Amino acid sequence: MAGGGERWIVSAKRVLGDFRLFRATELTSLGPHGKEGRFVVLDPPDWAVVIPVIERNGSRRILAVRQFRHGIGEALTEFPGGVVEPGEDPAVAAERELLEETGYKAGRIIHLGTCSPNPAFMSNAYHVFAALDSVLVAEQSLDEHEIVDVEEYSEDELLAGMGQPPWTHALMMTAAWYYRRWLESGLKR
Amino acid sequence: MAGGGERWIVSAKRVLGDFRLFRATELTSLGPHGKEGRFVVLDPPDWAVVIPVIERNGSRRILAVRQFRHGIGEALTEFPGGVVEPGEDPAVAAERELLEETGYKAGRIIHLGTCSPNPAFMSNAYHVFAALDSVLVAEQSLDEHEIVDVEEYSEDELLAGMGQPPWTHALMMTAAWYYRRWLESGLKR
Repeated sequence: MAGGGERWIVSAKRVLGDFRLFRATELTSLGPHGKEGRFVVLDPPDWAVVIPVIERNGSRRILAVRQFRHGIGEALTEFPGGVVEPGEDPAVAAERELLEETGYKAGRIIHLGTCSPNPAFMSNAYHVFAALDSVLVAEQSLDEHEIVDVEEYSEDELLAGMGQPPWTHALMMTAAWYYRRWLESGLKR
Repeated sequence: MAGGGERWIVSAKRVLGDFRLFRATELTSLGPHGKEGRFVVLDPPDWAVVIPVIERNGSRRILAVRQFRHGIGEALTEFPGGVVEPGEDPAVAAERELLEETGYKAGRIIHLGTCSPNPAFMSNAYHVFAALDSVLVAEQSLDEHEIVDVEEYSEDELLAGMGQPPWTHALMMTAAWYYRRWLESGLKR
């Protein structure tokens, strides 16, 4: 019997549409059960997100950005992040997005984990970083349609509120999962 | 100055393509900075996922499903889940997907949280449930191209491995975040 872990073989690919940030492609693939299926796949660029940790008076505080999200038509609060440019090191993308969105320059960037935002129909990777010892060095430097408010939370407050409004972006919970695991591993100390 | 939390007003919508599971639509929206921008939005149906908890000899074990994911061209391990049908209660969708993918019938379904899988460009919601006191009652009942292996993990093993292969589906970490918060809240006891 065919197993869930067995590979499918792609026999055809057809671009359905190009939407600036990604193309939609239809794969025709032969499964381990001997049948062909058709699957729509998107190919966005990789994404990087960064949890900026600031130490103030001995307690950890975390920078966040608030912005309107056009998919749901509402504003949410998130960690800084964005697209990894072609050929760019994901850690560099994380530092760059932090600087552009908040004006903070990372002292140290730590890779917390990498995963797939939605492997069922998206091919890209999602890289999660923490930025330590960041310092405010510049004004925000945003794209024409980026309007981003910078906010600051205590780490406890942020972790307690993660998953409830305004922290309901699923991938922020993913990032928080990696961050919490890293905190618990004691690597920070 | 325009704020990140301020609303944009949609002035035009144009369907770019229809891909069975979702359409791609271009929004033209007027921002709080007084300029119009164009944004591509996908409208997948809502998704529901369920963490099936089985008590065996006094310790908690969790059912998982292993399946090939066409977006990344690899097999991953995940919690059971799928699409919420039009008009369907998300809790019912979670129970249904659990039964179809594993043959287990949930004794009790608990809503752990709801969030947005990707609010930047997807309009849908992601509902996370736990299933308690589930009992094996049937064979799997899968769609033509679903090939799903059922696996079982100890809760400790699963939470320790979450975020590393084969647990690298970002939305499974989102689900685990809600589950862990629920465990820690002591609601279970």
